[in-house]
Amino acid sequence: MSVNQPLSKIDFKKELETASRGMIMIHDPKLLIKLIVRMIVRKLRIKHAAMILYESDEDRYVINISRGEAGHRIPVGFTKFSKESPIIRLFVEKEFRPLIRGRNAIVLEEINRIIWRENVVSKESGGGVKDLLPRVAEQMDTLNAQALVPAFYQDKLLALLLLGQKHDETRFEQDELDFFAALASDAAMAIRNAELFNDLSREAKRNRELFIQTIIVLGSTIEAKDKYTHGHTERVTKYALATARQMVSNGSASFDNTFFENLYIAGLLHDIGKISIPEKILNKTGDLTDEEYEIMKTHPAKGADMIRPLNLPLECVDGIRHHHERFDGRGYPDGLAGGEIPVTAAIIAVGDAFDAMTSSRPYRKGMEKEVAIKEIARNAEKQFSPIPVRAFLELYRQGRI
Amino acid sequence: MSVNQPLSKIDFKKELETASRGMIMIHDPKLLIKLIVRMIVRKLRIKHAAMILYESDEDRYVINISRGEAGHRIPVGFTKFSKESPIIRLFVEKEFRPLIRGRNAIVLEEINRIIWRENVVSKESGGGVKDLLPRVAEQMDTLNAQALVPAFYQDKLLALLLLGQKHDETRFEQDELDFFAALASDAAMAIRNAELFNDLSREAKRNRELFIQTIIVLGSTIEAKDKYTHGHTERVTKYALATARQMVSNGSASFDNTFFENLYIAGLLHDIGKISIPEKILNKTGDLTDEEYEIMKTHPAKGADMIRPLNLPLECVDGIRHHHERFDGRGYPDGLAGGEIPVTAAIIAVGDAFDAMTSSRPYRKGMEKEVAIKEIARNAEKQFSPIPVRAFLELYRQGRI
Repeated sequence: MSVNQPLSKIDFKKELETASRGMIMIHDPKLLIKLIVRMIVRKLRIKHAAMILYESDEDRYVINISRGEAGHRIPVGFTKFSKESPIIRLFVEKEFRPLIRGRNAIVLEEINRIIWRENVVSKESGGGVKDLLPRVAEQMDTLNAQALVPAFYQDKLLALLLLGQKHDETRFEQDELDFFAALASDAAMAIRNAELFNDLSREAKRNRELFIQTIIVLGSTIEAKDKYTHGHTERVTKYALATARQMVSNGSASFDNTFFENLYIAGLLHDIGKISIPEKILNKTGDLTDEEYEIMKTHPAKGADMIRPLNLPLECVDGIRHHHERFDGRGYPDGLAGGEIPVTAAIIAVGDAFDAMTSSRPYRKGMEKEVAIKEIARNAEKQFSPIPVRAFLELYRQGRI
Repeated sequence: MSVNQPLSKIDFKKELETASRGMIMIHDPKLLIKLIVRMIVRKLRIKHAAMILYESDEDRYVINISRGEAGHRIPVGFTKFSKESPIIRLFVEKEFRPLIRGRNAIVLEEINRIIWRENVVSKESGGGVKDLLPRVAEQMDTLNAQALVPAFYQDKLLALLLLGQKHDETRFEQDELDFFAALASDAAMAIRNAELFNDLSREAKRNRELFIQTIIVLGSTIEAKDKYTHGHTERVTKYALATARQMVSNGSASFDNTFFENLYIAGLLHDIGKISIPEKILNKTGDLTDEEYEIMKTHPAKGADMIRPLNLPLECVDGIRHHHERFDGRGYPDGLAGGEIPVTAAIIAVGDAFDAMTSSRPYRKGMEKEVAIKEIARNAEKQFSPIPVRAFLELYRQGRI
């Protein structure tokens, strides 16, 4: 549309369609309003326009965006409107319904005409309208607004479009106001849609966060029993994530976000099955008897069983069940070997062993890291899968473990 | 609009606005399509119309709704369209882009005209278009469709609107097709919006479900230690929820859904602090020494501490921390009395005591329910808050406990 082309009906329709079309896919209300107001000012040849939006948190109306030529913007400091503001009251309070009924916009000129008529014709009428309208006119003057276009959603004023003068300084025609009313209404709906979207999105995130936090608490319950391994769960999880990242860095694997999430959960819960191991075995300072060792060895399978009701992805469950398998097949519970061992389990196994070796217990001091690392390296392809071992050794050499 | 009124431009615009306006607030795609197709048939005087929608799960197109006079509906058995269907290929495959470029709808009449021209003018041209168009015409015939109106979203064919004959059997005018194209496009966007909404909604629900399931697993960890109280957590939670419901029924309280959710979580976790009580105290068959009893009494506060990282609502945390308070102020951990005791805790306390009394342990048989109930009644306003006791007794008398 050229700058000097008059606003014909067909233009309105096209602009409306173009504007409406994209709106519902934009879930950022501020961006949405910005686009609408920009379109009004640029394409529809209005000197300036502003959108006042309802903020439900604060139960007030705020100018969210104002655009136009210099000197035509909304003065700073006038950007918030309580429900007591005349221009808000006009559209919100029941008393003024008869005044706005049948109109989809209010023009300053018209308000001035009513004020004049009220003063001349019915000096006695008084009351709300007579008091309010001069204040509305005053506020519109301050805001440099020629027209107010309300946008309702289910009887609630969601937004108020403020229009400045047209570039050619002619008055607004009814079909122009119809167009702006349709636009404002679409905008209100799109804003509502965006709000619902954001609410739902926040809820999904909050619930996910709650789930993860609960997993952390669940994982930490074992530390209330197994006194000598304080922080073990957290450290093993940290090692596992770092190892997986390193495997991606050195090109030996390509894990996606889901994998990292599953590995994280598996790390946090890898020892959860120990909750069912009697304390006298769990906290025994001397060597376990064969019988006690057999009981101890049930913990990975028991852990996997415990979390079965969660229907977690197999990568999680496997990481728990198989973190004591050995690359040579001599581990437990299933004696898996080599590539049969799920990768989450193979990764956790390395960090788990390293932390067990390096942690001090009251009855023995932990190994030096250097010694433990050598032990890990020596056991690649025996106890441990070589790929995570390689990544783990790289991390150690880079001083990151 | 009266049935015999012709379709004027102004009607199109109005109908489009009315239709578009509400669309984005409807998050059920099927309902959305139903409303649109109904509007087309009823108001726009088309004998029948159908909407074909893309189903991403199956990577195919399906007639989701078909409406019209008897005999004009889509024949049964023709409701699914693979990507190999001629009418789908026409809009999806690159080869046919030149044919549909610049058109927002394809009319049968026009297709027949092209077929005729192709046959006469360029018998040699052959290839895709020549092969496809007769098959498109054939399929449109079978489907009783005079016009096909595609709806794209970001170059993807999301929907195809099938239009039957007009009631007055005249041909479709360009501005009518423009209208249907705008409608189909709005519908596609609204459908996409609804899908996104449903995806997000499902994600929020799934995450909530995961959280609750994890809480259940967390709550059940204590049963792995406290051997003699199998099912205690579950029963106490059931009693607590039933008691709260009865308090609402008998008018002594008005709880909302959030309260019930919080009570549910508090019930599941009320004994979680026992995880940190040594097994020899937890599972002792004889009387606890004073010192052991002091340790045992730490479990409600320890439980509340354990779940602090979750930032659960106070009603949950309080239900855990205070379920061993007594109405007379002689309970623990804080010696709260009467109305000071949070209501979730007061409710859990009753069911918890009842279950402890009625459950059998290897070293003692559980009380008869009748005896335990009398004990509960006798201790109202001593150990227990009277309002939940009243509800609990009502439940018992109704045979619901």
